[in-house]
Amino acid sequence: MTTQPIKGDDRNRVVIFDTTLRDGEQCPGASMTFEEKIEVAELLDAMGVDIIEAGFPIASEGDFHAVSEIAKRSQNAVVAGLSRASIKDIDRCAEAVKHAHRPRIHTFLSTSPVHMKWKLQKEPHEVFEMVVAQVTRARNHVDNVEWSAEDGTRTEIDFLCRCVEAAIKAGATTINIPDTVGYTTPSEYAQLFRTVRERVPNSDKAVFSVHCHDDLGMAVANSLAGVDGGARQIECTINGIGERAGNAALEEIVMAMRVRNDVLPYWNEINAQMLTRASKLVSAVTSFPVQYNKAIVGRNAFAHESGIHQDGMLKHTQTYEIMLPEDVGVSKTSLVMGKHSGRHAFREKLKELGYELGDNALNDAFNRFKALADKKKHVYDEDIVALVDDEIAQANDRVKIVSLTVIAGTQGPQQATLVLDIDGTHKTTQATGNGPVDAIFNAIKSLVPHQARLQLYQVHAVTEGTDAQAEVSVRLEENGHTVTARGADSDTLVASAKAYINALNKLAQKRQSVNPQTAYG
Amino acid sequence: MTTQPIKGDDRNRVVIFDTTLRDGEQCPGASMTFEEKIEVAELLDAMGVDIIEAGFPIASEGDFHAVSEIAKRSQNAVVAGLSRASIKDIDRCAEAVKHAHRPRIHTFLSTSPVHMKWKLQKEPHEVFEMVVAQVTRARNHVDNVEWSAEDGTRTEIDFLCRCVEAAIKAGATTINIPDTVGYTTPSEYAQLFRTVRERVPNSDKAVFSVHCHDDLGMAVANSLAGVDGGARQIECTINGIGERAGNAALEEIVMAMRVRNDVLPYWNEINAQMLTRASKLVSAVTSFPVQYNKAIVGRNAFAHESGIHQDGMLKHTQTYEIMLPEDVGVSKTSLVMGKHSGRHAFREKLKELGYELGDNALNDAFNRFKALADKKKHVYDEDIVALVDDEIAQANDRVKIVSLTVIAGTQGPQQATLVLDIDGTHKTTQATGNGPVDAIFNAIKSLVPHQARLQLYQVHAVTEGTDAQAEVSVRLEENGHTVTARGADSDTLVASAKAYINALNKLAQKRQSVNPQTAYG
Repeated sequence: MTTQPIKGDDRNRVVIFDTTLRDGEQCPGASMTFEEKIEVAELLDAMGVDIIEAGFPIASEGDFHAVSEIAKRSQNAVVAGLSRASIKDIDRCAEAVKHAHRPRIHTFLSTSPVHMKWKLQKEPHEVFEMVVAQVTRARNHVDNVEWSAEDGTRTEIDFLCRCVEAAIKAGATTINIPDTVGYTTPSEYAQLFRTVRERVPNSDKAVFSVHCHDDLGMAVANSLAGVDGGARQIECTINGIGERAGNAALEEIVMAMRVRNDVLPYWNEINAQMLTRASKLVSAVTSFPVQYNKAIVGRNAFAHESGIHQDGMLKHTQTYEIMLPEDVGVSKTSLVMGKHSGRHAFREKLKELGYELGDNALNDAFNRFKALADKKKHVYDEDIVALVDDEIAQANDRVKIVSLTVIAGTQGPQQATLVLDIDGTHKTTQATGNGPVDAIFNAIKSLVPHQARLQLYQVHAVTEGTDAQAEVSVRLEENGHTVTARGADSDTLVASAKAYINALNKLAQKRQSVNPQTAYG
Repeated sequence: MTTQPIKGDDRNRVVIFDTTLRDGEQCPGASMTFEEKIEVAELLDAMGVDIIEAGFPIASEGDFHAVSEIAKRSQNAVVAGLSRASIKDIDRCAEAVKHAHRPRIHTFLSTSPVHMKWKLQKEPHEVFEMVVAQVTRARNHVDNVEWSAEDGTRTEIDFLCRCVEAAIKAGATTINIPDTVGYTTPSEYAQLFRTVRERVPNSDKAVFSVHCHDDLGMAVANSLAGVDGGARQIECTINGIGERAGNAALEEIVMAMRVRNDVLPYWNEINAQMLTRASKLVSAVTSFPVQYNKAIVGRNAFAHESGIHQDGMLKHTQTYEIMLPEDVGVSKTSLVMGKHSGRHAFREKLKELGYELGDNALNDAFNRFKALADKKKHVYDEDIVALVDDEIAQANDRVKIVSLTVIAGTQGPQQATLVLDIDGTHKTTQATGNGPVDAIFNAIKSLVPHQARLQLYQVHAVTEGTDAQAEVSVRLEENGHTVTARGADSDTLVASAKAYINALNKLAQKRQSVNPQTAYG
């Protein structure tokens, strides 16, 4: 009933700006590899996101490279990069987005008293001049420039209006007033947009934008209230990931506009049936679990246990459901392939799941699928996704697992015998530990010495049943850098070894990139 | 800065009604044992919750027993039970809450066209008469009666006002207008309360209440908007658990009122420093993970990774934080005990963590602590909590693990040798499986035959480091009933065996209770 975008008055078209790859990726533990970012961006583009904020080009070579590649590949979406007020930042950002068929530079500066005094250590008149200079510089590169008043909701209103007017005059085409600290309320935020739009003489020359954080649990309601106040761009992320308590969740914003179009007469071009897949992909690449009762995409979002609700649902689904699971792409886990399925069927299935693999990768994945089908009664879509994702994660690995044997249980000590392939050479070791996972990790450490600290170890069953594949996430921290990696196998312990080795490989990549954010502030 | 309750005008005192044990426990997979419910209720009572909705007495013997025991034990909070409109329901509820020093009966009936037609299959005039009858019946038992208009936000306004007026006339002291399907928006919900309070002549005789679901991500904002519209009771749950996308999160409601007291001049008596502990306890007993970016209680809620934010934070915490982690009871993981710590120190530590164990349980826990301290370099508070929770979970178990040996790895098949103590008799078996966990679960199945299906298998590291204890959650489903149970051990595989066995024990308890909800509807 709410599947299709509801088109309406052009004045009520709301632009969806996804910042999963920038604000989302910026939060502790959510960093993604280059390949993962490309995968997410392609899905966002296909889903109908209007603007993809692909990263912060000056932050690292890796960020620059990812933004640049996403700019080249994007079919429909505008591709934006973030930059601070410095010339170097803006020029680097322009360099990264220049190959997009519709590039945007998003440049920001703090305007609140507490940020100007403590973070920027500048007087308001200096900040005002920087706003003009940064927007002017950005407009020298591209026509599509967004300016954000960082900490906008704590900014003194007269100063905010002056800065917004100056930014528009200098050429900003989008003005974002973020609730950087997740502080505002719906009525306050709606009023802020009304006031700014009324008081700024040239406000009709720009699109206004909301950007909300969920520190007090109101990011979605605040975003929609900002739209009621006249904003027509919403900055949001898949699963609501982002700094601290995260950003407004894209899937909630999109479905609220659709389900309550009677009181929120706004519309967008998102294909809602891709929301569940987007949620799963982002959860997988960040290893951030989605809580069961998360709106729209949580596993319980459409589940009904109590007798009363079940009874009502059997009589009429609308008694307890305001949207259909199918509207957001929820499908029942379905049996898809068995051990007699051939290579062609496997390739077709992969296409259906959104994967296009090269011949070598396809061969490897097919062999692993056959091995899995031999061991496991039912092979589900999710099993195949886990297997292929694991394959992609390991594509560039220098270290691979050859064999592992573990003896564990209550009688201790637990023992692991491990053979690794390191740059083509087989190396063997044996280690004990406090538990089998500890023994395995000790074995890896003795073959690949490193200083990283384990911050997170997590196991998920990919599908139901005791013979389900296990997907293990491991987060490592080294000198303030954190990486998260996954490994999948029908043996939890083998999956653990793979995840740890994948994390070490990611960390090795990260060591080579420089992060200048701390230097610039 | 926001630790203490801000007291204000008496007219702005908002009553906090926690329904974690009713609406929360009702959602798929969240069912708690009797002991777990008591533990949660005691924490809620100590934290300053005004009303604890302890369960739905007619639903099962277990529910009745839990409500009854919580009623007896509650020191400060009003204890409420839920009941439908039938005499049998209401009388059973009265029987359960009668020992509370402040008992409440919460009775509800659907008033929306879609619910009346499909679920109740009654005409509006029949529903109206049932409202009067149910409130009258409840008032025969207790002075404190709450009436809820189920699906209130989709109810025709004239009919809603008539029912509310009649309920108040029949003696209802609290009137709840729930957003049962998570459908409303802040401005719409605020207006609903204004309209009802204006149009119902005796509206000043009752306290109005909000109850919001998060299907569109707006439960917290809607609840606070309802208060702006004149409601003075908020129904909410710890971590926002509940049917489908869950209820409004208590911790977000409480902190929003405190942090934004300038625009939300309402106050409550919750001790916010206990919020983090309450969140952890509810997450542990339900095995529902809290997502990292969950507001207030997520692990990232106060974390800052990006260089810009770190830099700002170092200069002045208020640049990016609107409340202090300490305000909600976040403390750094701290080294607490070693292998030389004695029984007395251990008992003191348990008290500090909120546990009072009997002598036998203390002895058992102390022995397990010493064994852990022998194996593990650092023993943290969280390790002790996991160990004691595991001890409590197993207190009444008929089946216990004696020994387990597992051989696993890439060379398969994986093999488990298991000895169980079943009602005092040792039984041994050996099984293979697809992965070590599968082998273990197969071994358990051969010793304890059952039909339950594994729905979820999850492993968490309790603390950091490769020698961390593992905490495993297992969810089993049998004939529509689901139970979730935990097991903790420094060996993931042993923890898995414990969790599975604990789940079987929970399921055995559940089998004995009858759930009449489906029968009554």
